[in-house]
Amino acid sequence: METDRPLDALNNSRNKRVLVELKGGKQYVGKLKAFDIHVNIVLDDAEERVDGETKRKLGNVFIRGDTIIIISPE
Amino acid sequence: METDRPLDALNNSRNKRVLVELKGGKQYVGKLKAFDIHVNIVLDDAEERVDGETKRKLGNVFIRGDTIIIISPE
Amino acid sequence: METDRPLDALNNSRNKRVLVELKGGKQYVGKLKAFDIHVNIVLDDAEERVDGETKRKLGNVFIRGDTIIIISPE
Amino acid sequence: METDRPLDALNNSRNKRVLVELKGGKQYVGKLKAFDIHVNIVLDDAEERVDGETKRKLGNVFIRGDTIIIISPE
Amino acid sequence: METDRPLDALNNSRNKRVLVELKGGKQYVGKLKAFDIHVNIVLDDAEERVDGETKRKLGNVFIRGDTIIIISPE
Amino acid sequence: METDRPLDALNNSRNKRVLVELKGGKQYVGKLKAFDIHVNIVLDDAEERVDGETKRKLGNVFIRGDTIIIISPE
Amino acid sequence: METDRPLDALNNSRNKRVLVELKGGKQYVGKLKAFDIHVNIVLDDAEERVDGETKRKLGNVFIRGDTIIIISPE
Repeated sequence: METDRPLDALNNSRNKRVLVELKGGKQYVGKLKAFDIHVNIVLDDAEERVDGETKRKLGNVFIRGDTIIIISPE
Repeated sequence: METDRPLDALNNSRNKRVLVELKGGKQYVGKLKAFDIHVNIVLDDAEERVDGETKRKLGNVFIRGDTIIIISPE
Repeated sequence: METDRPLDALNNSRNKRVLVELKGGKQYVGKLKAFDIHVNIVLDDAEERVDGETKRKLGNVFIRGDTIIIISPE
Repeated sequence: METDRPLDALNNSRNKRVLVELKGGKQYVGKLKAFDIHVNIVLDDAEERVDGETKRKLGNVFIRGDTIIIISPE
Repeated sequence: METDRPLDALNNSRNKRVLVELKGGKQYVGKLKAFDIHVNIVLDDAEERVDGETKRKLGNVFIRGDTIIIISPE
Repeated sequence: METDRPLDALNNSRNKRVLVELKGGKQYVGKLKAFDIHVNIVLDDAEERVDGETKRKLGNVFIRGDTIIIISPE
Repeated sequence: METDRPLDALNNSRNKRVLVELKGGKQYVGKLKAFDIHVNIVLDDAEERVDGETKRKLGNVFIRGDTIIIISPE
């Protein structure tokens, strides 16, 4: 699969569970449903984690791209 | 419904109550009335929450997109 | 009135008194006279508030959009 | 005079003394000589103020727009 | 090889292991698989390091460009 | 001379000594040799100052615009 | 040589050793190999310095422009 560009690589994680870390230290884990060129993303079945433990369940969540540090398959 | 792009997914929450968290830690809950590509949004019947408790009621509120971390259906 | 887009909703507050909160914690209340797509705004009969009390009166004030968190009808 | 757009309103202050407050807390007062769409501005006969007292006189000063919070007629 | 432009130089590191340092102090080491003009990058076989020691293994990771300070061949 | 736009006014300082203050508190004084629309500037015979005293001499220095607060003729 | 624009002036330092200071306080010294309009740069034979002393040698390093404060010939 073509992964020369970062967003292509991100596309390989679509519908799979990913870990998203934000600038303020928050972590979200969920199924990657959507993203755009600003790296705005939508997760499904999402939960917020602190120190590896689930803090709360959010279901569907829209995360604004400019707060994101990394996205990695769980 | 099409949700390949994050703003399409956000559109599914239109006229429903959402939770909006800002970079400075503030939380707003209200009915999502409008949004644009900058993720500027307008909530109706909005209230500001601190630690899960209502701090004040705001009615209609415009929230500038670049302060937003996440938006999630309540 | 059309309020599908956040700036349309903001237009409904033109010539009405609004509360504007800034990233640094400052609050301004005044009559909304003008705004643009960057959410730069101009208030008339404006005052700066701290903890709900008037700190000083400013008359006319231009507020740069990127410092704004929320705008809400008073 | 037309003031529907914030920069038009700013134009009404041209050649008049204005107060400019910056994100870092600094205040400048001077005659507004020039501004552009980024809200970069030039003041003449400018002085820097701290807690309402003149800290130093600067004569002509260019202020970069992205550091500005508010501009208000003195 | 042409390296007049920084992204050309970065291209020379494609498929080689690089060290990436972020604004918040985090370090990632991995094989550079993809990057774009925003300096968004994708690493493979990646690990997060703290003080030169491996903190955790991430496999594939997408790093948002605006958090990056430097990228250097390991 | 035309100074309706801030960059025109800045042009009047070309080849003259200016004081440049940065967001982090640093001050540079030198002869203004070049600038562009991002307010990136180049100073010649430049020195870095702390509390009004010369900390070190830099000769020629390129200063990135987004770190600049003010530029004023010395 | 033409140095009316800051990037032209920067071009005069190509293949010469320069000092680069970043917002977070880090300093890099190396041979300037490449730069672009975002002031992303590539140094060769680079080293990181703290308080004027070499902390580590990096060889080739890509530095993202928005972290840079100044660039000066060593």
